[in-house]
Amino acid sequence: MIPVPQGYLFAAVAAGFKKADKLDLGVICSDRPAVTAGVYTKNRFQAAPVLVCRERLDAVPSARAFLVNSGQANACTGDEGLVNARVTMEMVAEVLGVGTDEVLPASTGVIGAQLRLDRWKAAMPALKENLGKAAVTDAAKAIMTTDTFPKLAWGEVETGNGTIRVAGMAKGAGMISPNMATMLGFVICDAEVDPQWWRETLAWCADRSFNCVTVDGDTSTNDTLMAMANGASGVNVDAQHAREPLREVLLDVCQALAYMIVQDAEGGTKVCRISVAGAKDDAQAELAARAVGHSPLVKTALFGEDPNWGRIVAAVGRSGADFEPGELRLFLGSVLVFADGQPASGDLDAVLVPLMRKQDIDVSISLGDGPGEYTLLASDLSREYVSINADYRS
Amino acid sequence: MIPVPQGYLFAAVAAGFKKADKLDLGVICSDRPAVTAGVYTKNRFQAAPVLVCRERLDAVPSARAFLVNSGQANACTGDEGLVNARVTMEMVAEVLGVGTDEVLPASTGVIGAQLRLDRWKAAMPALKENLGKAAVTDAAKAIMTTDTFPKLAWGEVETGNGTIRVAGMAKGAGMISPNMATMLGFVICDAEVDPQWWRETLAWCADRSFNCVTVDGDTSTNDTLMAMANGASGVNVDAQHAREPLREVLLDVCQALAYMIVQDAEGGTKVCRISVAGAKDDAQAELAARAVGHSPLVKTALFGEDPNWGRIVAAVGRSGADFEPGELRLFLGSVLVFADGQPASGDLDAVLVPLMRKQDIDVSISLGDGPGEYTLLASDLSREYVSINADYRS
Repeated sequence: MIPVPQGYLFAAVAAGFKKADKLDLGVICSDRPAVTAGVYTKNRFQAAPVLVCRERLDAVPSARAFLVNSGQANACTGDEGLVNARVTMEMVAEVLGVGTDEVLPASTGVIGAQLRLDRWKAAMPALKENLGKAAVTDAAKAIMTTDTFPKLAWGEVETGNGTIRVAGMAKGAGMISPNMATMLGFVICDAEVDPQWWRETLAWCADRSFNCVTVDGDTSTNDTLMAMANGASGVNVDAQHAREPLREVLLDVCQALAYMIVQDAEGGTKVCRISVAGAKDDAQAELAARAVGHSPLVKTALFGEDPNWGRIVAAVGRSGADFEPGELRLFLGSVLVFADGQPASGDLDAVLVPLMRKQDIDVSISLGDGPGEYTLLASDLSREYVSINADYRS
Repeated sequence: MIPVPQGYLFAAVAAGFKKADKLDLGVICSDRPAVTAGVYTKNRFQAAPVLVCRERLDAVPSARAFLVNSGQANACTGDEGLVNARVTMEMVAEVLGVGTDEVLPASTGVIGAQLRLDRWKAAMPALKENLGKAAVTDAAKAIMTTDTFPKLAWGEVETGNGTIRVAGMAKGAGMISPNMATMLGFVICDAEVDPQWWRETLAWCADRSFNCVTVDGDTSTNDTLMAMANGASGVNVDAQHAREPLREVLLDVCQALAYMIVQDAEGGTKVCRISVAGAKDDAQAELAARAVGHSPLVKTALFGEDPNWGRIVAAVGRSGADFEPGELRLFLGSVLVFADGQPASGDLDAVLVPLMRKQDIDVSISLGDGPGEYTLLASDLSREYVSINADYRS
């Protein structure tokens, strides 16, 4: 039984944006205004719903509802896309009995197609009927219809004055009608929080969770993480000195969801944790980690369960990170495979082959004795990934 | 009939570095000292033969022979790798009757394994026997045993005092025992040239040919382009004011070889020419072009012949290039598909689907009205690429 934060209602329906009769429209609604923060894609092309949420939350850090659809990204759709996003907010606000500006939209799907407003309109009666009947798991399923499993994580903070609950859900990379692999994440909490602290804390958590994972290096136009805190628990975080424990629970929830996104990557069979340490600074460590995590040769070797560590060394070498080649040390799991510019001695493959058969692979790279470090979770690259993404969109 | 530059001998044998009885050891030998220049990988881990050639040509810009093997990269092999490279140079110098320092080695194959010197030694009698009997096409085949076709290009410059010939060969990305996709290129010419001009001209050509192609974005530890000019034609380039025409022929040869490398990419079915213009400067244009050319989502869409242009726009958007989203214009072939932040009107797919079925796909991106431009040749990403690179090395 998931301890759902107090004061939230859920709805999930099949509006026909996707093929078959799949859930593709979800709503998470707070029964009162909630302090709300967002973190958005850094892609220069931001989808219409991203632009709307950013503008809205910059103006007023409060909302009542998250509105999510799959099947249509509403990205690269120009002014018409912005108008359409507004129209869907109005429709859903009427269903929920809240103000239009209190609804925050998020979308995922094919880029460049306009929203099908006729189907939105037709879905509203079912959405109204379903509101409050759906469980948080239903909402999690509706948000992530294209993933192979729902991604839900939760946690609690006990305070002297009651319990704060946090629950989060995400959709990751895995689409039936393949297109840009969009990451959407939503967190709800029933604490009373300071808006600015909530915003800073969400960004802090995103940098240490969702921003440290990669499937294919292609940052979407629609990536969005938003979090509401509605105060329904009656617990004021500041009065209870609970900022630190709540931040930790929030981070745990975000990291759990981020792990699941890599675990459920399109065609993915492995989760590779790439830890770089000893770099001159964190940025240098990130350069090295991302070069490894995005390397098609490393990713295909992972898929093939081939301990072809030379590809990892070569990827670090071309990463642009500043380090001395003679100082690099590479571990697969706990096995040192490369140091002093040459392979470690012994029959490495005999040790490494069984290790590569695991689902979780640890790659640890030391670039020297500097303070910089970075950890990235990366998926492998399979034939299935190519098949999913090469098939025509229709 | 290929017009081979004068004064060069070729040899090609099967030394057993690779499986089966495949040619894996090649020699190109000038009958006199030749002005020689090299361009090398920018990977921080440079293979032993790269280090040897760089040091040698930095000291004396002259050589007699290129010595190339496949099956063993001699990369990440430490001091032992440097000693082994030297031993192979000595063996081959004796066969050719030249000085050890006049032999320039180049290798491609699995990273991290030491050279099998016993097999090198055993191959020397056959190499000696074969020297001068092999044609330039045999050498081209020996250098590129793992490619699906040999890559050879040539050209001539007529001067008032005779003809200068240029011939080049390359091996690209496509290995039977898959590993780092190493690019090796060798150019021979029979002109008399100034060493510094030759070096600068080779680097200029490399920047406009081999450095503008990508298969998987993984820069090898062994990439090497070297060029000899031995003067056997009796034509002095400076006396004949032939620098400009020779540079153009050299560039043509390099660009032809670079195109063939993309055409023969591992699992590749398409050659995509990504031209970016209107950027603030060339570096910004290159950022955008490389983001598109390395995007797994763009590359799988190319493979699937899916005109999913939203992925191209999204890749430019995340490239880090500095531009205004509203100013981007995207053409597939000659068809404008995206401008003013939204799709061009009309039934784009009807026009684009036939275009995507071609082998050569032109993607043109304008970022604004700046002077910066860059063109990149990129392959697609197929299931076959994954299969080739996921299979175990043995």
